[in-house]
Amino acid sequence: MMPTGGGPARAEALSVLRGLIHQHTTRPGLDDLFAAAAEEEANLPPWQQANLREMNREWVRASALPLKLVEAMSQAESLSEQAWRRLRPENDFASFLPLFREVVRLKREASQAWAERLSLSPYDALMDGFEPGARANQIAPLFTRLRAFLPGLIAQALERQASEPVADCEGPFSVESQRGLALQLMHRLGFDFEHGRLDTSHHPFCGGVPTDVRITTRYSTRDYSKSLMSVLHESGHAKYEQNLPSAWLGQPVGLARGMSIHESQSLLTEMQVCRGRAFLEFAAPFIAEAFPDVATRAPEAFTPENLFRGLARVKPGLIRVDADEATYPCHIVLRFELEKRLIDGSLQPEDVPEAWDTGMRDALGLSTRGNDRDGCMQDVHWPAGLFGYFPAYTLGALTAAQLFRAGRRALPQLSEQLRCGEFHGLDTWLREKVWSQGSFLSTTDLVERATGSVLTTEAFEQHLEFRYLQRESS
Amino acid sequence: MMPTGGGPARAEALSVLRGLIHQHTTRPGLDDLFAAAAEEEANLPPWQQANLREMNREWVRASALPLKLVEAMSQAESLSEQAWRRLRPENDFASFLPLFREVVRLKREASQAWAERLSLSPYDALMDGFEPGARANQIAPLFTRLRAFLPGLIAQALERQASEPVADCEGPFSVESQRGLALQLMHRLGFDFEHGRLDTSHHPFCGGVPTDVRITTRYSTRDYSKSLMSVLHESGHAKYEQNLPSAWLGQPVGLARGMSIHESQSLLTEMQVCRGRAFLEFAAPFIAEAFPDVATRAPEAFTPENLFRGLARVKPGLIRVDADEATYPCHIVLRFELEKRLIDGSLQPEDVPEAWDTGMRDALGLSTRGNDRDGCMQDVHWPAGLFGYFPAYTLGALTAAQLFRAGRRALPQLSEQLRCGEFHGLDTWLREKVWSQGSFLSTTDLVERATGSVLTTEAFEQHLEFRYLQRESS
Repeated sequence: MMPTGGGPARAEALSVLRGLIHQHTTRPGLDDLFAAAAEEEANLPPWQQANLREMNREWVRASALPLKLVEAMSQAESLSEQAWRRLRPENDFASFLPLFREVVRLKREASQAWAERLSLSPYDALMDGFEPGARANQIAPLFTRLRAFLPGLIAQALERQASEPVADCEGPFSVESQRGLALQLMHRLGFDFEHGRLDTSHHPFCGGVPTDVRITTRYSTRDYSKSLMSVLHESGHAKYEQNLPSAWLGQPVGLARGMSIHESQSLLTEMQVCRGRAFLEFAAPFIAEAFPDVATRAPEAFTPENLFRGLARVKPGLIRVDADEATYPCHIVLRFELEKRLIDGSLQPEDVPEAWDTGMRDALGLSTRGNDRDGCMQDVHWPAGLFGYFPAYTLGALTAAQLFRAGRRALPQLSEQLRCGEFHGLDTWLREKVWSQGSFLSTTDLVERATGSVLTTEAFEQHLEFRYLQRESS
Repeated sequence: MMPTGGGPARAEALSVLRGLIHQHTTRPGLDDLFAAAAEEEANLPPWQQANLREMNREWVRASALPLKLVEAMSQAESLSEQAWRRLRPENDFASFLPLFREVVRLKREASQAWAERLSLSPYDALMDGFEPGARANQIAPLFTRLRAFLPGLIAQALERQASEPVADCEGPFSVESQRGLALQLMHRLGFDFEHGRLDTSHHPFCGGVPTDVRITTRYSTRDYSKSLMSVLHESGHAKYEQNLPSAWLGQPVGLARGMSIHESQSLLTEMQVCRGRAFLEFAAPFIAEAFPDVATRAPEAFTPENLFRGLARVKPGLIRVDADEATYPCHIVLRFELEKRLIDGSLQPEDVPEAWDTGMRDALGLSTRGNDRDGCMQDVHWPAGLFGYFPAYTLGALTAAQLFRAGRRALPQLSEQLRCGEFHGLDTWLREKVWSQGSFLSTTDLVERATGSVLTTEAFEQHLEFRYLQRESS
């Protein structure tokens, strides 16, 4: 919502605040305190042990970087992100390059400092900041499996859906009605409006603190479903935040576990639940009621089956945020490969447009030559210095599928409940297994305890086959 | 916009930030630096001398208070303000009292610490924080004069307007159209949307930093004029901020001079300019065009003369923010008298409701007995710990009238320009006399240099007589 001219002042404010946080997290004497705490650790209750582990993690990461580097990164990343907002629409990678070079240069420097301190590779050290414990050599086999599995699934889904037409309906869908519908379904999903809001922004996001969770969406009067699905997605993030253990609020152990678990909660809500047939049977009349004129003109568009089909279309495209869940991992694998090389120095910033074009042809058969706007400049992550973040999206999708499969097994009535818009059963299960844990367990332990196995691609593959090919397996 | 449940987390964040700012402003060694700077002062260019004076002012104020008191005040005031938001609608002064007592107790303590350090009375020490140089013994004669002058004016205005009916028009006025009209006039007024936004909130305000100025309004579908006037008012604040001297941004000398000058800019825009006949001749067709259905039904409501009459109604009432400009000072004088006594200890928090009722009967012949919601609980200021702020509203009204009279004398074409919606001449004059000065001059010097005399009630009285009694004098 910030006017563009406010950017520099905001960059400066963020830089000062990050510097202060850094100073606070690295103030003298903490090493002695951590050493003393380590001696007492065995006598602490488990949640305090976990809290100490998380504090230590933050301290080690923070104290590995000099203050000057922290401030320089913050300033460079704010300026680069703001320039990107202007230059992406102009498809102007050349003007963006000097700023991007500086972001990459500083991030390489930081990743090396972290790598030394944490005894990790530089790229793993970056990922570890978003998703503690994530390692490239564990992710690579999962991604290799997806690269093998997805092309066949995508081809079959495309073939299948060609013979399953979707009844289109043209709007206009008023922003007011869309917002009303979104709020109605958020209420139903259990979003706590005493501790959160829905607003409008250029890109949907979820931000804030657990007692004040802000989610946003954007509206198009020609298509209500994108906005609605983004609201349901962000509501999944929001419910995780709002249900973190209140007794641990303000402590590191009380924070959300990491980005892949966070993404698993949004994708479980959007992809597993809300785009599924059971929920759509519940939601269909509300959707039709929100747009009475359109529903009168084209009632066939608002049947649960037609809504389901419309929301389960596979369509390879250039833009990650517009991708369906079958092609989405292809976008992530490309970014994972490129950013590993950007950080290890085997890819230079100026060579990214070409590498992107090559990767995109390879992944989805599409070219971005001369179209950096829809290629390597499409995401805010790299301009904002977020390297090592992308894998969490696909790890989140795998986790969502694996969690939801476990939840369905634990809750035999789940489909019936979702058909009635009843989330209590699922929420209780998620609260126990995920939300109430905060950062108590490691990601690996959390997934294993909740689902009975380590993270694999199996549940996700089953989910895709079931949804897009109507093939039962579990 | 914050959901109510976010209050405690925000209170804590603000408290920590204020504590950090306090630590920064009072860090060891500053006394030596100020002493050394004082020796060099004569060699500094004038703007740096002013900057040093403003730095010193901030430092002296900050270092007069212990950190613990700063944090306790911040916490108490945040909690009290949040409770007030809940308790005012419930008319529940009894539940508010314990929180209010704590706010007053801490503020008395702080005012005494400031008073000792600044050699001022405790109340003057508080006012000095909002309006440097303001002193109760200089304000009291101005307010005494207003108390003598206003009752007669109000009585005559009421009598006169009884014979001048206003053509009413009932809405509905859609929020979208109101917002469109507001944006259109903001553009015309020269609000810089590259460095600012218009949003919606419960009470209109202007906030942010000079490169990112946020103004807000609220909308009623039954009355467009209140929202529109509040937007024009806040736009006056915003233009002051947006036109502060960019060379001094981030320095104390680059900040707005004080609350009475700030209020003079909003009131000059709203009261002197936008509610005046010349501007309304310009604005009338835009207003009619914004609400075509209503304007077709009731064209007589949208003539400049009818708009002028509708916006120049005097009506004694209980609520300050709803008051017209003739009765408004009565609300301020009441608050000034009571808060002086709250701070010097001759009035206790539990006795405020009765004192308010007595004062209101005396000032406007209206009672608030049993109606604290519309009495002493109506304003956010005291619940938020803002004592010594209220006088600035009326000082601002006097200053606005005196500045506008000087501007009209300096710009013989001004009425013609306003009739065309042309603000360039007035803005150039204000930029030179007020905006570009930042905090370079004291308030007294600024007013004297811009208008040729110290602040009196004369221009304001002339303005009221001209607008409400059609009596020419200047």
